[in-house]
Amino acid sequence: MPTMNEDSHLHYMQSALREAHEALEQREVPVGCVIVHEGRIIGRGFNQREHLQDPTAHAEIIAITAAAATLGSWRLEDTQLYVTLEPCPMCAGAILLSRIKTVFFGAYDPKAGCCGTLMNLLQDTRFNHRTAVFGGIMGEECADLLSSFFKNIRNNAAGTRNGNNFQ
Amino acid sequence: MPTMNEDSHLHYMQSALREAHEALEQREVPVGCVIVHEGRIIGRGFNQREHLQDPTAHAEIIAITAAAATLGSWRLEDTQLYVTLEPCPMCAGAILLSRIKTVFFGAYDPKAGCCGTLMNLLQDTRFNHRTAVFGGIMGEECADLLSSFFKNIRNNAAGTRNGNNFQ
Repeated sequence: MPTMNEDSHLHYMQSALREAHEALEQREVPVGCVIVHEGRIIGRGFNQREHLQDPTAHAEIIAITAAAATLGSWRLEDTQLYVTLEPCPMCAGAILLSRIKTVFFGAYDPKAGCCGTLMNLLQDTRFNHRTAVFGGIMGEECADLLSSFFKNIRNNAAGTRNGNNFQ
Repeated sequence: MPTMNEDSHLHYMQSALREAHEALEQREVPVGCVIVHEGRIIGRGFNQREHLQDPTAHAEIIAITAAAATLGSWRLEDTQLYVTLEPCPMCAGAILLSRIKTVFFGAYDPKAGCCGTLMNLLQDTRFNHRTAVFGGIMGEECADLLSSFFKNIRNNAAGTRNGNNFQ
């Protein structure tokens, strides 16, 4: 992994996991995200789709908008994004548009992951930006949080709300 | 094209074009979008990336959030989205997440279009939703608006701001 030592990556992924726990407390699919610039967290977000009734309210989109507000610029060059779940097409697209340098994600998403699983939008040379990507950082913890959320939903026979898709 | 007659499609694309003109007046890359439900426009948006300094502030994302607020639900089933430019990966992803039924777009985007040009995310059977898509609706008007915007920028020697990418 680039630049920072492994402890730093775990530190920021733990911050993303704390965001995911915020989502869990609000009965949202638990996904969390932080964006780092020069060693400082400049944007945070957790999935709020149900609470806001907004299909675009994924953790990454909220964190990207927050980070852009912090920097006063839509260009998030030289930033790193940490997210507990592999980004979907929407979020991978937003990562490219904001020119984020590197993405670190936790759990792989077999249903919608577009940073290596179903496809890798971040490395498609036809777009005008490429983002480096590393998956499986604290992957087990991130996946366990999601699995226990869905298990809980199934046990409560309320599984239709989220239809077992991660976000 | 499905359901409605051709006049209806032109009517809604003209509404999307009016949104694009709003963007133009604010010196944004001119892309506009409307979302229709049961014959009524329930969400509008135009590109505001520069004004908001938000990389996610594409016309479609703004219109989707507005439409979800109108319906009080993130599920935009049985809606049609009209946009003057072929959606990028972020917006195509948001369209899938919001379960929009049909997309009609104007100009094709050779650099980032993901609804038929570089790829077709809306019809990828691996995702849990598919959206029908029709391109080239008033395509010439939509493309001309974009071309004249970039020509203007080049003439003013300020071309670096938007780097000639559509959004």
